[in-house]
Amino acid sequence: MNNDLYPLYYPESISVIGVSPREDNFATIIFKNLIKAKEERTLNAEIYPVNPLYEECAGYKCLKEVPETDLTIISVPSSLAWQYLKEADKRGTKTAIVISGGFTESGSEKLLKEKLKIRVLGPNTIGIVNTYNGLNTLFLPEKKATKDGRFLESLPKLKKGKVAIITQSGGISVSILDELLTNNIGISSLTCLGNSEDITISDTLEFLSYDENVEAVAMYIEGIKDGKKFMKIASDLTKKKKAFALLAGVTQVGKRATMSHTASIMSDYETYSSALKQAGIIQVYTLRELIDVIKTYEMNGLPRSDKVIVLTNSGGAGVLAADNAAKNGVNVPNVSGILNELKATGKVPKIASLANPVDVSASGTDESIIEVYKKLSENGFSNFIIISTHYPPGITDKLPESIKKISDEYKNFNISVELGNTEWSEHLRKTFWLMGIPAFNSPEEASITMAYLVKSSKAQPTWRFSVRKEPVINFKGIIIDPESSEFLKEFGFIIPPWGWIDKSDLNRLPYPIALKVYRKDLIHKTEQNAVRVNILNAQEAAIAIEDLNKKFPDGRIYYQQMIKGQEIRLGFVKDESFGAVVSVGAGGTLTELYRMTSNYVCPVTFDEALDMLKETKLFDILKGYRNKTIYDPEKFARTISELSQWVYDKENLKELEINPLIINENGPYVIDLRMNFD
Amino acid sequence: MNNDLYPLYYPESISVIGVSPREDNFATIIFKNLIKAKEERTLNAEIYPVNPLYEECAGYKCLKEVPETDLTIISVPSSLAWQYLKEADKRGTKTAIVISGGFTESGSEKLLKEKLKIRVLGPNTIGIVNTYNGLNTLFLPEKKATKDGRFLESLPKLKKGKVAIITQSGGISVSILDELLTNNIGISSLTCLGNSEDITISDTLEFLSYDENVEAVAMYIEGIKDGKKFMKIASDLTKKKKAFALLAGVTQVGKRATMSHTASIMSDYETYSSALKQAGIIQVYTLRELIDVIKTYEMNGLPRSDKVIVLTNSGGAGVLAADNAAKNGVNVPNVSGILNELKATGKVPKIASLANPVDVSASGTDESIIEVYKKLSENGFSNFIIISTHYPPGITDKLPESIKKISDEYKNFNISVELGNTEWSEHLRKTFWLMGIPAFNSPEEASITMAYLVKSSKAQPTWRFSVRKEPVINFKGIIIDPESSEFLKEFGFIIPPWGWIDKSDLNRLPYPIALKVYRKDLIHKTEQNAVRVNILNAQEAAIAIEDLNKKFPDGRIYYQQMIKGQEIRLGFVKDESFGAVVSVGAGGTLTELYRMTSNYVCPVTFDEALDMLKETKLFDILKGYRNKTIYDPEKFARTISELSQWVYDKENLKELEINPLIINENGPYVIDLRMNFD
Repeated sequence: MNNDLYPLYYPESISVIGVSPREDNFATIIFKNLIKAKEERTLNAEIYPVNPLYEECAGYKCLKEVPETDLTIISVPSSLAWQYLKEADKRGTKTAIVISGGFTESGSEKLLKEKLKIRVLGPNTIGIVNTYNGLNTLFLPEKKATKDGRFLESLPKLKKGKVAIITQSGGISVSILDELLTNNIGISSLTCLGNSEDITISDTLEFLSYDENVEAVAMYIEGIKDGKKFMKIASDLTKKKKAFALLAGVTQVGKRATMSHTASIMSDYETYSSALKQAGIIQVYTLRELIDVIKTYEMNGLPRSDKVIVLTNSGGAGVLAADNAAKNGVNVPNVSGILNELKATGKVPKIASLANPVDVSASGTDESIIEVYKKLSENGFSNFIIISTHYPPGITDKLPESIKKISDEYKNFNISVELGNTEWSEHLRKTFWLMGIPAFNSPEEASITMAYLVKSSKAQPTWRFSVRKEPVINFKGIIIDPESSEFLKEFGFIIPPWGWIDKSDLNRLPYPIALKVYRKDLIHKTEQNAVRVNILNAQEAAIAIEDLNKKFPDGRIYYQQMIKGQEIRLGFVKDESFGAVVSVGAGGTLTELYRMTSNYVCPVTFDEALDMLKETKLFDILKGYRNKTIYDPEKFARTISELSQWVYDKENLKELEINPLIINENGPYVIDLRMNFD
Repeated sequence: MNNDLYPLYYPESISVIGVSPREDNFATIIFKNLIKAKEERTLNAEIYPVNPLYEECAGYKCLKEVPETDLTIISVPSSLAWQYLKEADKRGTKTAIVISGGFTESGSEKLLKEKLKIRVLGPNTIGIVNTYNGLNTLFLPEKKATKDGRFLESLPKLKKGKVAIITQSGGISVSILDELLTNNIGISSLTCLGNSEDITISDTLEFLSYDENVEAVAMYIEGIKDGKKFMKIASDLTKKKKAFALLAGVTQVGKRATMSHTASIMSDYETYSSALKQAGIIQVYTLRELIDVIKTYEMNGLPRSDKVIVLTNSGGAGVLAADNAAKNGVNVPNVSGILNELKATGKVPKIASLANPVDVSASGTDESIIEVYKKLSENGFSNFIIISTHYPPGITDKLPESIKKISDEYKNFNISVELGNTEWSEHLRKTFWLMGIPAFNSPEEASITMAYLVKSSKAQPTWRFSVRKEPVINFKGIIIDPESSEFLKEFGFIIPPWGWIDKSDLNRLPYPIALKVYRKDLIHKTEQNAVRVNILNAQEAAIAIEDLNKKFPDGRIYYQQMIKGQEIRLGFVKDESFGAVVSVGAGGTLTELYRMTSNYVCPVTFDEALDMLKETKLFDILKGYRNKTIYDPEKFARTISELSQWVYDKENLKELEINPLIINENGPYVIDLRMNFD
């Protein structure tokens, strides 16, 4: 493992640069917080204030120079931060948190270029919280005064937990902490990456994958600078820990100025989404979802099955939860067969609806719910969403304890829902919460959280790092000549019969043919009117050749046999962060309009390539929807997978596009290949 | 207007059937609540308890027989309810609320079949709340005891508002009330439809469209029984009032046993969704969204523009809100040009990001936010999402009042967001709330609410009721013969040249042709192998004819000229509730797999037909994506619209499907027509 970051999370000595007599100075606040933690014995580290301008600050003697420590925290104007960082590095300090924001771009570039040994978190970060070490660099007040002079809690006290949080926003960091801690839920650590000029999300993940106080990671991601590294590290992490991510601010549509059609329609957002999925990370879609998932995971861990029971006394809320669970891929089995007996014996009201949602109706009582819960637990069901609206008289605050008792026996996974905000709603939510059962106030939010955790319990990374043997062929620049396609045969592609017209007897061509002009600048031949298709005989060929020669006197004409089959787009683009990304979709105008494309980070494994074909429905097409079998999708997936490895290995390849690619019962034909090499 | 329901919402006399000495009896609770409301002068009506078994109940003399009143509320076992209903009807009572649930199916059918004059809400309903009349039939306790004997608020006090709520679930009704009233937000009325055996959602909407205390309607819908009526009434309502709906429990995929392919793939959910859109109703997707929309509408009304500013001191939260607003169709314009001057003059921090989201950064203060807010208000922007996280010291609880002052001057539309649950988070939310500014604790929920209200401010019904002249042609049973297509010419379709083979000279056919067998049971000719395509000459025709004759000796063969062009599926199905529904999509295997289909309720107007073509991208295809103009999409939209009117008028037509339909520069060709008439 990479131990570089150990001193950042578990420092035994810390200096704080910028401490001053001003009480509201960030450095002073941080320093005082650290001293307090040390005095309270939550933090076991030496703490040094640094400021050459003062003898003493906050009752401690100020150091004039930066000492050698595990960690230095720098909170001075950005113009000075750089200088302190160099000094700390020179002294042998191992890690730094640069709180200061407002770096000019050139300032941040310096951080990278000077090749300091010191590892730097930030700049523009609120730093780190590690509940297992007592390290907390937050400089925000725990209490704040209102205008009428009352002091209210602004940031809650820390508590230990199992989830590590990584964010790229200070505000989001604190909001998540607030939501968790006010619900008495702990965290393992919080890392705010700030501008990530040195330590990236990947570095952090690498460290956390070995931190035994971390069971799961929850991330707020606005961008990934080192996608190739991220794929390796994240895929390793999710083999043993769980990971969730909220993605924001990533552009929906790519705006690359490039040669290939693939690149111009590829969306960064889709690439990020695929990267997360490939790395075994569960993507969530709102801040609330991220917080709900952390809360529920901290309290419950993971569900043991993908079958979920929605148990309620409110038909409507039950339907909303069950609909949403099913929509998000959770199995909501009909259990009326198991429960009908309860109706017969009068243990649930006659008007109860026992399919799933199991609705004991508004006349249902605690007992009706308990009877159903017990019966289903006995029958092996372990995931429950319990929506017990308190308005009808039959529901009391004894319900949570009764549920808890049975749940403990069967080791169930429960989420409860209480609607509304009345005192009773809050009372019942709190009562469930005290029993260790997360309490929501929205049926849909309960079921989506359940869905994410069910998904996470089964999630595995599909991405595998691999490097193949040295690629055989070397290209340079833009390659569009027909000979160059030949190497694709190695991956299972077929090159349609072709030849140069100037070397051919028109009477012996494999009609029907297309005639195409090769000239270095004719990158999109069809759009440039340098293609004639469906030529049936020598006579038609002669006319077309004359016409093409006239239009492109300096081009060289070749024929290509016309191929019938399913049109497909296959392209590879080098993403600045993730390296090679492969894009697959059905060809043709309509499917382009529908944007039914799948983009995955390379190299894609056979399974991932198969997933891509399934996502774009090409799997069904090839496999024989409506009995028209075309070609074995598994063979094509293997071809994509192997080509993706080649592209991944070929570092100077910027773009590769086979468009059109036509597939029929013989296999995938390369109709036109475009490549762009550095 | 239909005044039938006036006595239900504004009764001057009410009887309650089933009142008894038992305190927890529903009828007793309702009766006591009504008496209390009368005493408090919120309800101005005569109230009569009815129960033949007792002389006196709750201190009032019980009537033995049902009196004539505007409204009777029946809460007795379902076996007796029916008998009381008949009695009330006989006495001339105008309306009834049947609280009782547990009716057997035959019991509810009776309600309909006996043709009583009395209008019935329910059964299985919690009834009606009308804040303008003081009518409130809820039988739920306002306070409930905890196990340790404390009495906590279980249902809040009512308050007047502008939105009428209609639901099909008692639990959802009460939850919405709870969420609104605990936030001090009123409603106009609440109608719980229960099983809707008599009064439907359409009846209710019709009444509410004339209730001057109602500005907007918010609905929770699990099903619409009278879709045809609903379309008329809802489209009328949304011409003058706003409407929002949450849809639940409607099946995603149709499971009709039918003749046409169209019917088998048509989704009820999509039909409902389209129906709402056509009727000018904004569909929301979660209970929280429905509640948030009501809250914000009650406090703010509607936005005046579709441009939204996200103004924040937390970059991350700002990005989440702005991303989500843009994704939901809201215009999030870049305003840095207007704001740069504030940076120059030092009114916002140098590190502020002023595009949109406008992020004054964590060093920003109340003043920075106010300066931006003021500047943008002066420049005509009026919709703001203000996310002012309180953690940094610069944000105080004076901010809401300052915002309010400027907002009043410019008549802005604001939503505020405070993240977290600490005392300060709640304090700041409350302070905004007291200023009349809705306060959320999720950036995404704020922006989706903004998006719905922006959408609503522009929403108009597109559906128009119309009946054309008596349709000319009369069909019976299943129609698949080639002659019957001819009538479609009237709508702008083209019938490809065709003829019976037994009357034709094979040498004079318009090759290339298809040969098809007509026989009554060959409904899906291709699947039944009764079609030969791409026949190029008389010789090929002769062979195919011989083959078809052998296979189908009792069929009659006809030729049809082969047509090239874009394949389209066009079908009509009679939905039990909505009547005729039209479905359009691109043809071909892939597009079927992608389910890119649009289903609208008939008759579709020209504009709606154009919307359908746009939704399915057929508009782009026809218009000439990539310069391949095919056919004027407006002409085709008109054809669809006119045919939809014909199908709508033709009451005995169950299904009509043109599949395939091929469109080229000449227009839409009918390749195969299938119709099914009663």
